[in-house]
Amino acid sequence: MTNREVGIALLGVGTVGGAVARTIAEQRDVIEARSGIRLVVRRAMARSTERVVQAGLPVEVATTKIEEVIGDDGVDVVVEAMGGEEPAATYMRLALESGKHVVTANKEALSKHFAGLVATARSSGRALLFEASVGGGIPLMASLRQILAVNRITRIRGIVNGTTNYILTQMAERGATYAEALREAQQLGYAEPDPTADVEGYDAAYKLAILASLAAGRHIRPERVDRTGITGVTPEQVAEAGARGGAIKLIAGAELDAEGWRLRVGPEFVPGDHLLAHVRLNYNAMEITGDRVGPVVLYGQGAGPQPTASAIVSDIVDAVRFGAVLTPEIAPE
Amino acid sequence: MTNREVGIALLGVGTVGGAVARTIAEQRDVIEARSGIRLVVRRAMARSTERVVQAGLPVEVATTKIEEVIGDDGVDVVVEAMGGEEPAATYMRLALESGKHVVTANKEALSKHFAGLVATARSSGRALLFEASVGGGIPLMASLRQILAVNRITRIRGIVNGTTNYILTQMAERGATYAEALREAQQLGYAEPDPTADVEGYDAAYKLAILASLAAGRHIRPERVDRTGITGVTPEQVAEAGARGGAIKLIAGAELDAEGWRLRVGPEFVPGDHLLAHVRLNYNAMEITGDRVGPVVLYGQGAGPQPTASAIVSDIVDAVRFGAVLTPEIAPE
Repeated sequence: MTNREVGIALLGVGTVGGAVARTIAEQRDVIEARSGIRLVVRRAMARSTERVVQAGLPVEVATTKIEEVIGDDGVDVVVEAMGGEEPAATYMRLALESGKHVVTANKEALSKHFAGLVATARSSGRALLFEASVGGGIPLMASLRQILAVNRITRIRGIVNGTTNYILTQMAERGATYAEALREAQQLGYAEPDPTADVEGYDAAYKLAILASLAAGRHIRPERVDRTGITGVTPEQVAEAGARGGAIKLIAGAELDAEGWRLRVGPEFVPGDHLLAHVRLNYNAMEITGDRVGPVVLYGQGAGPQPTASAIVSDIVDAVRFGAVLTPEIAPE
Repeated sequence: MTNREVGIALLGVGTVGGAVARTIAEQRDVIEARSGIRLVVRRAMARSTERVVQAGLPVEVATTKIEEVIGDDGVDVVVEAMGGEEPAATYMRLALESGKHVVTANKEALSKHFAGLVATARSSGRALLFEASVGGGIPLMASLRQILAVNRITRIRGIVNGTTNYILTQMAERGATYAEALREAQQLGYAEPDPTADVEGYDAAYKLAILASLAAGRHIRPERVDRTGITGVTPEQVAEAGARGGAIKLIAGAELDAEGWRLRVGPEFVPGDHLLAHVRLNYNAMEITGDRVGPVVLYGQGAGPQPTASAIVSDIVDAVRFGAVLTPEIAPE
């Protein structure tokens, strides 16, 4: 098999972007052996050149201008690893319009602009892939795509935020208060200095909106999620749940009933005979229920640079091999 | 999207083949909406025409001759749902050679003829897909394909046989003896009248050999599995495991060490902090560990006509959409 060279551009060379650069370098033999594709980072957009060099990339690929990325004919796939709604959403649109495939881990930009980005990808005949946006390295999108090909999905439910699950696990297993467990999570780098996005359930709501949109085939915005965080969970509630053989978990759930899709993120009691009760620390698990396959649960590391980069690089390979056919159909709201 | 018509042939119209026919009919709108493909069963090979009619198929599609299947230009995809090593393996080879894609749920034929069948598929430029051969409706192959694109996999471990897991669950939760639990499983249709293939670990060994072959990229035969069944598991061992907070499970495990891949099927103690300890009744769960994604667990109904047919029909759609590129590379032993 002759190895085909594929040009990559990274938008953002922070934790995730840097891990993508290192994964491409360190797993080169695996990637080439499995797919016959040689990935070459041709552009890396970052505020400082230093970051680009720290990620092991040659200084020549560094740029601060989006025009130099989308105008480069040697770039086939743009990896958006900046995070946040803007300018990420605009850059993704520009990249698709200029004929690049786009791979993203950005749950906020995707959940807010899903229908528009998908429409741009489809009209440009390009792939828009986002395996890493929910559940890190867990093959959630690949699984969902397979199940959706044959099943009606009427229920998605699970743990999609590792930070809050880590905090709730420490409360349950060590009797820590919320404040103590949060502080420890921050020291370990599992929680941000400002933990609002995680502990108030925004992160989970973005992810849930993406999954529900895929199941519905229609854009469901994160604002529609009925959202409660974990800041009000007391050690007493956690202890009582444990005494009943179960656990309090931050559950993200979407369900289709006669009135349409209902989306909810909030702390819930999960009984001990359900797998979700046994998802500990910063792990994630999602249960997808199809009318033919029944409940399927996918579990793994929902965050972290290595699992996230693994999912991104796998998406790059899929974008090159299969192209636009993998872009889902998401109707406007 | 114009709907493209795709001709299907069923080899075998028993429990699985019949469920495939019904899934194609009952999920027609889902399949067409998602893929733009209209599946039409054009041939159904069975010993009796009655079975074909019972599956809701028109009597004209019934045949008893493989030549009428492989010689039919209207057949694009052959679904092998006969089970057993032969003539299934030969029929799959003939179908591939005559330019049909092949989809199978047959773990025995596949695990014994993996390299040869894959080579035939590749030289014919056709897809050989087998999602349903391990873990029923669990998207195991789709997930494995994605993880393998970027990761070295050095460990696969889990519960791949629902019958034995049902028996062990009944022993643990109701204090039943092995013989009592087996009898109940037989009454419920979870165990065959002759349960040897399940309870002695042959079924699990076939499935493990398929997964290990995919991870290794090289044919690993089921004869290489160090295999022990569950017939010697006592109520005392099961109770003691429960008292320690864990469970006895029939674990199928493959691990790569300095001397190569080691494959083992046998009853093991699984501690309570591991997800596999909480897989109850006839469910399956596999843990795949990649060097980048870490451990990923996939859980769901590992058998049953509906989940199995769901995986088969999804493979049919993938075969038509993506073709031979999905056929793995498996070097001869």
